[in-house]
Amino acid sequence: MYAIIVYDVSVERVNKVKKFLRTYMTWVQNSVFEGELTKSEFETVKIGLKNIIDEDYDSVIIFSSNTSKYINRKILGVDKNELTDIL
Amino acid sequence: MYAIIVYDVSVERVNKVKKFLRTYMTWVQNSVFEGELTKSEFETVKIGLKNIIDEDYDSVIIFSSNTSKYINRKILGVDKNELTDIL
Repeated sequence: MYAIIVYDVSVERVNKVKKFLRTYMTWVQNSVFEGELTKSEFETVKIGLKNIIDEDYDSVIIFSSNTSKYINRKILGVDKNELTDIL
Repeated sequence: MYAIIVYDVSVERVNKVKKFLRTYMTWVQNSVFEGELTKSEFETVKIGLKNIIDEDYDSVIIFSSNTSKYINRKILGVDKNELTDIL
């Protein structure tokens, strides 16, 4: 399945979320990751995020689709992901 | 079609982008909007964003699908959209 994860978490947890998500998905923009996940990886990511965030304060939205085939992607302006490949 | 827009733009343009997108879509989290758009609204949103952002510096990613039917949505922690309805 294809997943897009956006998060708005307290500053002391941002790096932990980013480091965790990087092991499964691609960073595409501040607080946005995307990527193909197996069902078990999807569960692992959900549980992992729950263990990191403060559910009373932080917010994570996971958009997912059975296949990336149903999701179009258009970039206006800079593709920050490309930039990070160079840096 | 269903669209999810995430943006990372310079601070002097954030409010302008937010104000513009609010006329067509729902704010769900910092720098994240989602919503159902007709094809012409989709074009209007793309052109409108291009007119606001600095394409050499800012980054907008538009994820879209023909229908929201193909996109699942799961929230971990706080649903910031609900909060803003109360504030």
